Amino acid sequence: MLIVQKFGGSSVADAERIRRVAGIIAKTYQDGNDIVVVLSAQGDTTDDLIAKAELINKKASKREMDMLLSTGEQISVALCAMALEALGTPAVSLTGWQAGVQTTRQYGNSRIREINTERIYAELDRKRVVIVCGFQGSTTNGDITTLGRGGSDTSAVALAAKLKAGLCQIYTDVEGVYTADPRIVPAAHKLNEITYDEMLELASLGAKVLHNRSVEMARKYGVKLEVLSSFTKQPGTIVKERVKVEETKISGLAKDSNISRIALVGLRDEPGVAFRIFRMLAAKNINVDIILQSIGRENSKDISFTVAKSDYEIAVAALNEEKDEIGFQSLDVSTTLAKVSIVGAGMINSSGVASMMFEALYEAHVNIHMISTSEIKVSVLIDEVNADAAMNAIHKKFFRD
Amino acid sequence: MLIVQKFGGSSVADAERIRRVAGIIAKTYQDGNDIVVVLSAQGDTTDDLIAKAELINKKASKREMDMLLSTGEQISVALCAMALEALGTPAVSLTGWQAGVQTTRQYGNSRIREINTERIYAELDRKRVVIVCGFQGSTTNGDITTLGRGGSDTSAVALAAKLKAGLCQIYTDVEGVYTADPRIVPAAHKLNEITYDEMLELASLGAKVLHNRSVEMARKYGVKLEVLSSFTKQPGTIVKERVKVEETKISGLAKDSNISRIALVGLRDEPGVAFRIFRMLAAKNINVDIILQSIGRENSKDISFTVAKSDYEIAVAALNEEKDEIGFQSLDVSTTLAKVSIVGAGMINSSGVASMMFEALYEAHVNIHMISTSEIKVSVLIDEVNADAAMNAIHKKFFRD
Repeated sequence: MLIVQKFGGSSVADAERIRRVAGIIAKTYQDGNDIVVVLSAQGDTTDDLIAKAELINKKASKREMDMLLSTGEQISVALCAMALEALGTPAVSLTGWQAGVQTTRQYGNSRIREINTERIYAELDRKRVVIVCGFQGSTTNGDITTLGRGGSDTSAVALAAKLKAGLCQIYTDVEGVYTADPRIVPAAHKLNEITYDEMLELASLGAKVLHNRSVEMARKYGVKLEVLSSFTKQPGTIVKERVKVEETKISGLAKDSNISRIALVGLRDEPGVAFRIFRMLAAKNINVDIILQSIGRENSKDISFTVAKSDYEIAVAALNEEKDEIGFQSLDVSTTLAKVSIVGAGMINSSGVASMMFEALYEAHVNIHMISTSEIKVSVLIDEVNADAAMNAIHKKFFRD
Repeated sequence: MLIVQKFGGSSVADAERIRRVAGIIAKTYQDGNDIVVVLSAQGDTTDDLIAKAELINKKASKREMDMLLSTGEQISVALCAMALEALGTPAVSLTGWQAGVQTTRQYGNSRIREINTERIYAELDRKRVVIVCGFQGSTTNGDITTLGRGGSDTSAVALAAKLKAGLCQIYTDVEGVYTADPRIVPAAHKLNEITYDEMLELASLGAKVLHNRSVEMARKYGVKLEVLSSFTKQPGTIVKERVKVEETKISGLAKDSNISRIALVGLRDEPGVAFRIFRMLAAKNINVDIILQSIGRENSKDISFTVAKSDYEIAVAALNEEKDEIGFQSLDVSTTLAKVSIVGAGMINSSGVASMMFEALYEAHVNIHMISTSEIKVSVLIDEVNADAAMNAIHKKFFRD
């Protein structure tokens, strides 16, 4: 089977860890698999390189930043190839351009356009492990680009899709996807399987296991993912299209404290009001998460929405500046909230999931400020001080610990 | 005029030095020149990368070492481009392969086969300073190679030759080529001009200013070189085919203490004896410097030669092993010698240069053990303890301080 194995920066942070990674790869090779490895830069290398650049030019062009940062992965792949050589496993390292990864010209945030697999297949035919720099590619002009931070996951999934790999393993420093963050919910357990959609919801809800772009791409091309740890030899969590329905109706829960709620009260009840508000916020590059609109008093309506904590001051200033045009009576901000969500593909066909969540919150004496639902997700906004207790109460309700 | 400017590792060692280098480049650009810059890796970067590799695999393949080491120059060129951007000077950095530097497949010690200048000319047409990674190139297969240590000088000269540059400036941490090492001979002074041949002799005699391969290439293609300092704004030393004859007959003197003399006494006086000795040493990769053969007693001959100090034990062991086949009576080794040489294109047409040198040594009471001469060089082997006194005495004789 052709397997793509991706190892993150902490998995290759030093010589000892690179040797451990090489051991995992060599074992997979000895089992008779063809292997393409994708690596990130070692530990803090990328941050160190950025610091070097900032000493020289705080506004360096993105082209030159990519030229600089791409060296980080190149060091990782060369060292990993050396570690495999030391184990007697034939290996060859390739930069993004050598591996045929062609991208758009958006330096610092490019997208993969095409992968010319000629070189990779030639090396696989020679029974070599092919070790590719993640996070990077090149334009048709031969200029080096990067895919943006976290982009090594995307490199791995794109290669797996193009090479029709049987499995794409994403090695991280956690053992897989958990029902909740074990630091908050001690009873949380690892999931054996999860759907792409659930993974996407969990990722966007703050479970930092997989980069969202990579999950979207895996879903689009049907790439079977496995999230697992390079530090233990345990099986991880498989991410795929459908999973067998488990007894519990949800896959996991997530908490996001990086959230502020802005409420606009007393808006005119006429068409175009919401459009004006969110066009203005989009123009300021402010991402809006939950949006709720409710009927207000006397021909008015209220609109509440959440933004990242780092954005709320800009948002409030912009809204106040346009107060007359938008036409609201008052603006209310809350920055002491958290969003707690449950995710599960099973809830589409299962009634009562939301009410089970609300029941758990009621039993834990947690007041709900806002509710938002999608087909596979229920999110509530609650006071941040209650969030951890709420997480444990909900987890206990669904998983019976 | 098209100028190639090469800066060594110490000239780009940190942010402050890179800014200084960018200042020199920007000034040359403002004077209306087209500029191609060639950079080495920063300070100790190459050594640090080698240390990283050795922690993982002491016998790593040369291909992977090149993949690793080539990142050093890539970091330098990106940072330098950023520094030029900060000064408002348009610049673009290129790796060896982006610059079209095609090499042989000898990883770690490749040679430049061809330079495809399309990209460089396109960037020069856009009035950008083109900053190229020295020391590296790529095979036709797209694999990264390095030219071996000191190879950035060769990159610069090869680019200057191919682009028909009017001048190739080699910036170092010394102000030019001196008549002797100023640390040994306080009266030494900087030369304004020197010929390629003299430079080659001085370099091979231990004056570590320019890499020999680069000087040979400059001579072959008639590239005008200038050796100068990136720390001062003084003119340096021009290296070219012919220089105006100066009053003094020599250009400079050099000392080499990394030398051992091996004497084979009582060899048979028959054909093939020297061949057998030096074939054997060549097979062990031992470079032989001076060779002297003299007539011995009773149908025998003696052969003396010098090797690097690090090689003499291997050489002696090999010779003793083959003693019967080679057929010598005794073997004598001396490791407390130094070679002092004078170099000057002028001495070809000038009698008495050697005798002036011997006179200086006689006056300084220095005994000579071996003499070797070429058209533009006279070398003597003397006791190492006398070497510095000899250097000063010879310098005074020729340059009158």
